Amino acid sequence: MKRNGLAALFLSVFAASGLWAGGEEPLWRGVRDYRLAHESEILREFTELLAVPNVASDRENIRKNAELLRRMIERRGLEARVMETEGNPVVFAEKRVSGAERTLLFYVHYDGQPVEPEKWAGTKPFEPALRPGKLQAGTREPAPIPFPAAGARHEDDWRIYARSASDDKAPIVCFLAALDALRQSGLGLKSNIKVILDGEEEAGSTSLFPFIEKNRGLLRCDVLFMCDGPAYYSGDPTLFFGARGITSLEVTVYGPDTSLHSGHYGNWAPNSALMLAHLLASMRDPNGRVKVSGFYDTVAPLTESELRAVRSIPSFEDEVKRTYAFRRHEDAWPSLMEAIQFPALNINGLESGGVGRKATTSIPASATAHFDIRLVKGNDPRDMAAKVVNHIRSQGYHVVEVEPDAETRARFPMIAKVTGGGGGYAASRTAMDLPVCRMVIETLKRHGSRPPVLLPTLGGSLPIVHFQDLLETPIIGVSVVNHDNNQHQQDENIRLGHLWLGIETFAALLMI
Amino acid sequence: MKRNGLAALFLSVFAASGLWAGGEEPLWRGVRDYRLAHESEILREFTELLAVPNVASDRENIRKNAELLRRMIERRGLEARVMETEGNPVVFAEKRVSGAERTLLFYVHYDGQPVEPEKWAGTKPFEPALRPGKLQAGTREPAPIPFPAAGARHEDDWRIYARSASDDKAPIVCFLAALDALRQSGLGLKSNIKVILDGEEEAGSTSLFPFIEKNRGLLRCDVLFMCDGPAYYSGDPTLFFGARGITSLEVTVYGPDTSLHSGHYGNWAPNSALMLAHLLASMRDPNGRVKVSGFYDTVAPLTESELRAVRSIPSFEDEVKRTYAFRRHEDAWPSLMEAIQFPALNINGLESGGVGRKATTSIPASATAHFDIRLVKGNDPRDMAAKVVNHIRSQGYHVVEVEPDAETRARFPMIAKVTGGGGGYAASRTAMDLPVCRMVIETLKRHGSRPPVLLPTLGGSLPIVHFQDLLETPIIGVSVVNHDNNQHQQDENIRLGHLWLGIETFAALLMI
Repeated sequence: MKRNGLAALFLSVFAASGLWAGGEEPLWRGVRDYRLAHESEILREFTELLAVPNVASDRENIRKNAELLRRMIERRGLEARVMETEGNPVVFAEKRVSGAERTLLFYVHYDGQPVEPEKWAGTKPFEPALRPGKLQAGTREPAPIPFPAAGARHEDDWRIYARSASDDKAPIVCFLAALDALRQSGLGLKSNIKVILDGEEEAGSTSLFPFIEKNRGLLRCDVLFMCDGPAYYSGDPTLFFGARGITSLEVTVYGPDTSLHSGHYGNWAPNSALMLAHLLASMRDPNGRVKVSGFYDTVAPLTESELRAVRSIPSFEDEVKRTYAFRRHEDAWPSLMEAIQFPALNINGLESGGVGRKATTSIPASATAHFDIRLVKGNDPRDMAAKVVNHIRSQGYHVVEVEPDAETRARFPMIAKVTGGGGGYAASRTAMDLPVCRMVIETLKRHGSRPPVLLPTLGGSLPIVHFQDLLETPIIGVSVVNHDNNQHQQDENIRLGHLWLGIETFAALLMI
Repeated sequence: MKRNGLAALFLSVFAASGLWAGGEEPLWRGVRDYRLAHESEILREFTELLAVPNVASDRENIRKNAELLRRMIERRGLEARVMETEGNPVVFAEKRVSGAERTLLFYVHYDGQPVEPEKWAGTKPFEPALRPGKLQAGTREPAPIPFPAAGARHEDDWRIYARSASDDKAPIVCFLAALDALRQSGLGLKSNIKVILDGEEEAGSTSLFPFIEKNRGLLRCDVLFMCDGPAYYSGDPTLFFGARGITSLEVTVYGPDTSLHSGHYGNWAPNSALMLAHLLASMRDPNGRVKVSGFYDTVAPLTESELRAVRSIPSFEDEVKRTYAFRRHEDAWPSLMEAIQFPALNINGLESGGVGRKATTSIPASATAHFDIRLVKGNDPRDMAAKVVNHIRSQGYHVVEVEPDAETRARFPMIAKVTGGGGGYAASRTAMDLPVCRMVIETLKRHGSRPPVLLPTLGGSLPIVHFQDLLETPIIGVSVVNHDNNQHQQDENIRLGHLWLGIETFAALLMI
């Protein structure tokens, strides 16, 4: 029975693909039919890839990923090779198309964030698990189910839980499945295709950029697609034309050189946690407006078309609040989408003394806060960090870069150690009305099943500026995964409906 | 050689003790001569006691402590017994003196704070180590030396490192050595002596108070000496007539129900760490003045003699600053000694997200601060905690006592969970000009080598109020250990010079 059912399905798909290759129905419908007939195959390849651990520092497994990816790409008829860098290898592939007018370069990364397996809700980061829905916060429900047999349907709301399920192996699998769908349809590519897979994005891509510098010719292209990040909340395919830059800082303020008995010294010895609270409160008002002098001075204003794009993005703020269970948002800007067009000073963590079972009735010797600074076009990372340091000085602190010694402690009433701030990278933004950008948008509108959401800037940071400096090409981001994918955390996942739509999105892009 | 030298020393001591028993020289000199001849013996007994682990939750070792203490006391001719409570046993001892006009009760605790052995600088909490000086911060220097052979001298600045070396086994050993010195001198006691040793002070003495309630007759006395806490910075024997009370609170404020990507949501999603910073900054100004409404309203003012005593205490603020390497102190009050006459709101710890290697570029889901509130006479623990909770409400927070559920999160813009606040105890203060207090002060001035420092209130907290409620007796604190003893922390220690002076102090008190 099953075998017969499957055969019938294949027949219908072949029939369908015959139709859409002929242009009588939209491209996305044919791609969808292909996918409907090959879901198990696609997921089998995907889960095999997810099962290979891919933390950037795990050199051995990183190389296994690279080799597996090379074979996967070669099976699609591209020339693929694993290329050495000073760090993790890059997978490079290309397909030259005779008569092509342009070259498309797709960037994806195959490494993933470090994992803390003990925090995962009953599954393992590198043993992909299928759950018939989204994991409910604080539970292990819904429990994993077996992957269905070949030919069986998968519900759109099912999710695969594994490290890099979304960030960033999903786009690789979408891209390859899109190639398969197009090949089966007989539709020819009109552009040369190049692919570069980065093996250390989550570790800063430090070896990638020297590699690109040495291989500029190999990577020459007319447009670079950075395939990463979550699709907009609406679930529509999402193009972004820039991303925020980032730098980070850690600040430690000091009281006595050891924690002191809060009874004998409370009301008199300086309390480092209180000092830190006052310092942090001086930096940002409760609505999130940064009070650091000059923090907004270098922001490059949005162009008219960018502003129009930002304001036409449908609001999903209420859904975000429902999803993450909070009621009040910081309202220094009119909307979330406008807020991310400005630099942000985010406190990532606080640490001082002890709380809970570790609490002691002491005055803590020091208190530390970690920040990241998200940057927008116009902001220089060092300049922005320097402004924060100047603010700390303006609050009466003597700023040092290393643990203060006895002499420094004796000399200065208030001391802050600031580290970091020398790294990071700037934001970048490709003008949305460049001809190539307009063509990409139009192609996606014509061939995709749903019109794309267009974001002038992604809230997250990507070192696009380095690509732009090295390759001097327009760069467009492509985001297909669900926004609630838990990237960088435990229980990373992808919603199958997003994976499927991602295949349609990449197929449309391949038609440029 | 050594043996002969020792014999000569003993002879000279016996000669001296003959003299001071006859009243021809001050008591303290005879006690000192006795100690000089018996240092090794005293330290041997002390280190044997310190070697028995004494964390209150370690029931088996606690009992070993109690049994060892009973034997130690019995050797001095007191009737001693281990008495059961609902928790850890109490050691009770007494010596009735015929014709005694009064009864002195000495309270000491034999349990110690929990330990984190990995934090100790190369020695173990329950393996007492002798260092020829104070451990230098951040080092393991000076390295431990062997305990000298019997009869050899010990330098005053040497220190023994072990849990409870100061808090609170030192007073027990001082008391017993003082008894030995007096016995050897032939000087008779004029008061009945009672001793009660508490086995769970560091765990709140919860079983002790029901025990006292049941044994009021046994514990009847004319004055209770609470032997605990550090001597004043001057190193002089220190009497305190009250101690601050304490209660504690833990506050957690909430943003989203999981940490969020600071790029995608920074500038818009509520940052719990920032919320906490604003809340803490609203509670106390940078100089330590508490801004919680009514916080100082119930403070019972000092009497004239108390105020005079406070103002006549020599200032050691500069030394404290040098010792703990800080320059600026909170200056809401004219001096440290005046500052501790007021309630304090101490932040003990902060925790939110991660810092250092644990930092992620996220907006932390929640942020927690732990506080203690040090109370003075007139403050009710629950009332003071309620005032802080009211302040949190006044900052816009909906206050809950358990983790907020989805409905609560959906309903309230700002949520704070507050726990604790229902426990603790009030401060207490015995009037310094009661006849029995005046007598104690005079006796110590007459028989001690150095005049005592008199503190109306100790900065630290002791549940004196419970003793006062149950025993209705004047209570005077006796503090002999060095202030820089690292009590409640790693590397707890006692300076030998303080231990020796402590013996002289207890000998003087026993002459009442």
